Amino acid sequence: MKKRLVVLLVVIILVVIPSVVFGAEDTVESAIDTVWVLIAAFLVFFMQAGFAMVESGFTRAKNASNIIMKNMMDVAIGSLVYFAIGFGIMFGADKFGLFGTTGFFGTGLTAEFLGLNIPLEAFLIFQTVFAATAATIVSGAMAERTKFSSYIIYSFVISIVIYPVVGHWIWGGGWLSNLGMVDFAGSTVVHSVGGWAALVGASILGPRIGKYNKEGKPNAIPGHNITMGALGVFILWFGWFGFNPGSTVSGMDSSIGFIAMTTNLAAAAGGVVTMFLTWIKYKKPDVSMTLNGVLAGLVGITAGCASVSLWGAMAIGAIAGVVVVFGVEFLEKVLKVDDPVGAVAVHGFCGATGTMLVGLFATEGGLFYGGGFELLGIQALGVLAVAAWTLGTSFLLFQTIKKFNGLRVEEHNEVAGLDIGEHGSVAYGDFQMKSLETLGK
Amino acid sequence: MKKRLVVLLVVIILVVIPSVVFGAEDTVESAIDTVWVLIAAFLVFFMQAGFAMVESGFTRAKNASNIIMKNMMDVAIGSLVYFAIGFGIMFGADKFGLFGTTGFFGTGLTAEFLGLNIPLEAFLIFQTVFAATAATIVSGAMAERTKFSSYIIYSFVISIVIYPVVGHWIWGGGWLSNLGMVDFAGSTVVHSVGGWAALVGASILGPRIGKYNKEGKPNAIPGHNITMGALGVFILWFGWFGFNPGSTVSGMDSSIGFIAMTTNLAAAAGGVVTMFLTWIKYKKPDVSMTLNGVLAGLVGITAGCASVSLWGAMAIGAIAGVVVVFGVEFLEKVLKVDDPVGAVAVHGFCGATGTMLVGLFATEGGLFYGGGFELLGIQALGVLAVAAWTLGTSFLLFQTIKKFNGLRVEEHNEVAGLDIGEHGSVAYGDFQMKSLETLGK
Amino acid sequence: MKKRLVVLLVVIILVVIPSVVFGAEDTVESAIDTVWVLIAAFLVFFMQAGFAMVESGFTRAKNASNIIMKNMMDVAIGSLVYFAIGFGIMFGADKFGLFGTTGFFGTGLTAEFLGLNIPLEAFLIFQTVFAATAATIVSGAMAERTKFSSYIIYSFVISIVIYPVVGHWIWGGGWLSNLGMVDFAGSTVVHSVGGWAALVGASILGPRIGKYNKEGKPNAIPGHNITMGALGVFILWFGWFGFNPGSTVSGMDSSIGFIAMTTNLAAAAGGVVTMFLTWIKYKKPDVSMTLNGVLAGLVGITAGCASVSLWGAMAIGAIAGVVVVFGVEFLEKVLKVDDPVGAVAVHGFCGATGTMLVGLFATEGGLFYGGGFELLGIQALGVLAVAAWTLGTSFLLFQTIKKFNGLRVEEHNEVAGLDIGEHGSVAYGDFQMKSLETLGK
Repeated sequence: MKKRLVVLLVVIILVVIPSVVFGAEDTVESAIDTVWVLIAAFLVFFMQAGFAMVESGFTRAKNASNIIMKNMMDVAIGSLVYFAIGFGIMFGADKFGLFGTTGFFGTGLTAEFLGLNIPLEAFLIFQTVFAATAATIVSGAMAERTKFSSYIIYSFVISIVIYPVVGHWIWGGGWLSNLGMVDFAGSTVVHSVGGWAALVGASILGPRIGKYNKEGKPNAIPGHNITMGALGVFILWFGWFGFNPGSTVSGMDSSIGFIAMTTNLAAAAGGVVTMFLTWIKYKKPDVSMTLNGVLAGLVGITAGCASVSLWGAMAIGAIAGVVVVFGVEFLEKVLKVDDPVGAVAVHGFCGATGTMLVGLFATEGGLFYGGGFELLGIQALGVLAVAAWTLGTSFLLFQTIKKFNGLRVEEHNEVAGLDIGEHGSVAYGDFQMKSLETLGK
Repeated sequence: MKKRLVVLLVVIILVVIPSVVFGAEDTVESAIDTVWVLIAAFLVFFMQAGFAMVESGFTRAKNASNIIMKNMMDVAIGSLVYFAIGFGIMFGADKFGLFGTTGFFGTGLTAEFLGLNIPLEAFLIFQTVFAATAATIVSGAMAERTKFSSYIIYSFVISIVIYPVVGHWIWGGGWLSNLGMVDFAGSTVVHSVGGWAALVGASILGPRIGKYNKEGKPNAIPGHNITMGALGVFILWFGWFGFNPGSTVSGMDSSIGFIAMTTNLAAAAGGVVTMFLTWIKYKKPDVSMTLNGVLAGLVGITAGCASVSLWGAMAIGAIAGVVVVFGVEFLEKVLKVDDPVGAVAVHGFCGATGTMLVGLFATEGGLFYGGGFELLGIQALGVLAVAAWTLGTSFLLFQTIKKFNGLRVEEHNEVAGLDIGEHGSVAYGDFQMKSLETLGK
Repeated sequence: MKKRLVVLLVVIILVVIPSVVFGAEDTVESAIDTVWVLIAAFLVFFMQAGFAMVESGFTRAKNASNIIMKNMMDVAIGSLVYFAIGFGIMFGADKFGLFGTTGFFGTGLTAEFLGLNIPLEAFLIFQTVFAATAATIVSGAMAERTKFSSYIIYSFVISIVIYPVVGHWIWGGGWLSNLGMVDFAGSTVVHSVGGWAALVGASILGPRIGKYNKEGKPNAIPGHNITMGALGVFILWFGWFGFNPGSTVSGMDSSIGFIAMTTNLAAAAGGVVTMFLTWIKYKKPDVSMTLNGVLAGLVGITAGCASVSLWGAMAIGAIAGVVVVFGVEFLEKVLKVDDPVGAVAVHGFCGATGTMLVGLFATEGGLFYGGGFELLGIQALGVLAVAAWTLGTSFLLFQTIKKFNGLRVEEHNEVAGLDIGEHGSVAYGDFQMKSLETLGK
């Protein structure tokens, strides 16, 4: 009897209790991870509101409705096509290190295959809102002159293929992830893709009427609601706390607090440096550039938020704050590309810069920490490869759209405003606008 | 001695360790559930900001302050009276399947009685913000002409009795919940209650001055700030991630990611379908209708977000996107009810539609999945019963208010604007408005 | 052999299993706490957007960009200097009960030293956003006339020393915390510090041009965007759910739901009482005062949110709703201090009142619950000591700034607006403003 008892005890101790305890443990840990990833996803979703406010606030009142329609469609169309196709290209079974081949239309992928500790759908919604972020960056750079139907086509294509392929390379088990490229939350995957596509789109479109005078010198075209633009920046900063710390895909990961700190310090440094720099350059602290400086810091730290020190994060934010000022000027004065909101400088230039800086500031493998040039080289290769892919495919895309559908609204509609021309309504019907041209009547 | 040791071991193994382990387990699981429910509650609370922006943005500048006062009071008064009375009617000990009879003034109900895994107060704040949502829906439909004092009385009554009774029927152990009606997060409980009360209120009020011409044809009265309205829609979409996934009342529930996906896909489908439909019908993609299409998709999926497939969610969102367009036209042109923001179509029609569609799309019990007509019949019964109750009590309420306090402001105050007439101030003092009538001076 | 087995069993039962189980438990509990604290921190961060909207919405359009620049710099500069210096003064090793002496520049403090169950950086980001809140309160009271460069200096100093010292006294192991002062989430630490500094700043600055007529009677200077101000209040209310329940610094703490309820009821009571009070006093329910009433309730409950009953919370909110109305009048008519947004009354007066009321309403130790006068006395001492410190140091600070840099913009810049004068741009370039003076051209 005693023997049986001992055997029973041994079984209970070695089999039953551990399985119950660790089973429960697993469930609990998975729940914590799921809750964390979902809340992060919601915050990243909310960044869409931030983009909408920044992009419409920094442009003219006559195009405000059109811009928010574009933002709304980026997330709506993006959500549908990323679910149907994009997710499979990004995370499906790898082919040649270049793209995924399974997981289309919501079938064929499992949490197990992806090595997830959370349900597949929690990961899917998280990835969906990232895809929508990449898409919506372009909207601002192409603001105030793009045909709405053409923008819809662009939005469809970037979410279905351009972004997911890059995502596969770096996050989906593709060739750059195999090389060891570090892009924790997407300075390159998300922001530079949006930034490069924005550069191509804005270039092909050409500048807005009145942006350059006869001598080719740029005129400032101020935004119509800087307060709303600032609200957008605050919303983006807030949402970025989902973007970066959420990219652990785990609430059990004890580095989430650290990542929140690097994110915040970089944003702060970006804003402060840009403010003082514009103060020196232009004699007065520039409002919209300072707001872009905060965004520059956030974009810059996104790649390295988990692998640099707190002081490194400040340095990256500060550098991004300088890059954005000169980037905006370079684009406007040298390249003569008219980017109404500075999206190319913020997301493209600072996304690339931030990714490169990981090669310097990463506490493991960074040049400044004795890691040599290997990581820096890989980061550079990744930045260039993604730039080449995105610039190339965007060029093809926008040229094709231009040929078959036209990319730009007719001149009288641009003058009148896209709200009237494309949607038959105005955004601020009760307010007196500065002039008939401005309101578009 | 050995015997004692064995006995001690047995006690430790079978009693002490399990109780400690599972006690701790319980605490941990309860903490995860509590954190999840609270964050969801905060997101649902934030929907009040979304409603305020949508409702004021889609109406005229001269009534903007009045609308946000109404929204603010919906949540303020609603929070107080729902705590004191509504919660008990909704979740107290059942009487006849019709209403609760205990739990008033913060006493008499416990987490145990309600079968909760979270502290009572966490459940209470979650339910409070749901009640406030139902109340605030009406504000938009009655905008620009309702006496503020009368609105306060309405807001008090809906939170104290009209909404809690429906809540009891479906969520509080009442007769519809016993029948097996499925309304996971409240297409019927919250949205249709708001929508039907809005229908009655707007009908009894009559249309705004100038809404219909002499031939009875409706004039468009555009909103004064579409950008802000769009911000409101983004905030609502964001908050809905608390509304639907939060309605598991558990972060341990592994379906929360799935529910976030159904919610997002339905919103996206609603927006896309409405946009294309208006593009076809009106030749141009309509901005405010598309924004309402997103909300329609969200309202539509709220009942079935946990019981339909991802494709079913898309279908429900798409159907809601059609219903809202024809619903708005039906109301405006056939019923001649003036609902300035489309609240009746969005919350009433799409709330009812979404609840019915669970009978078709539920993967367990839905007609399309071989479940026969039973669930569909129960859903229809529930929709009709709630409509009858809400239409009836609202009619009584608004007629009583009309008789004893008057429901509508005087004509000169409606022309001048309710901001001046009811509150003695204007919302945009520094801006030139289109005309004196518009601003109200 | 059997003996060995028993020994093995004993070791497994008494050593291995508990250590594994409770180790895992610890990790899980720490993760829940970390996730909770971070989300709370993000919500508190988002309050910055609320402050920006309230402060710019309640003031004139010609100063809107300047105000949001000040808010943006409060959080940007505050994040950097609080990390470098402030955190150490607040939480470093105590000296004389007055200030901390370690933990500067991100070194020297550990989670163990601070007795934290979460990583140090999670605590640091949480404390950073609290510090930024204290700083940004002042911005509104000094709106529309302060030199931007002087504001930057102020913002730097409050985050680096004025706020951290108070934080040390009450939260960092200083003399007031040793006395047993109760200020759970910072009615005194955060809000009264901001409020008293605002009082000093606004006093030294003097009133805006045109605020008082020749007889010294105040003129109303209405805000330029009340809708946006209301959005700000909704954002603040939303963010306060991070501020108060988050101050448990633990998601395992089962009182977080209770604290969310006290917070919400106090805000609701504050709004309702203020609305009815203004209705009686001014014949019409006042919009901006009611919005301030909500904030008053929130500020008032912040000290006692974890130690009063739900009914006590309502009482505190209601009292704060009265205090804010008379406080604004007292300031404007008696003290002749021009506080454009009511920051001193909301944060200073209601912060002090709420802290005092803990001495009456605390269910443990409060006078109304048989606790005698001890707690009330300690609360009063704390309120007075913090007021003395903040008024004194702020006076020194602003007088020094005034002497060496000047505190107020030149008259023509104040008339033209600080957007033009200090930043060379306007916030609403497309809109017709009421008059040239208003827009500032």
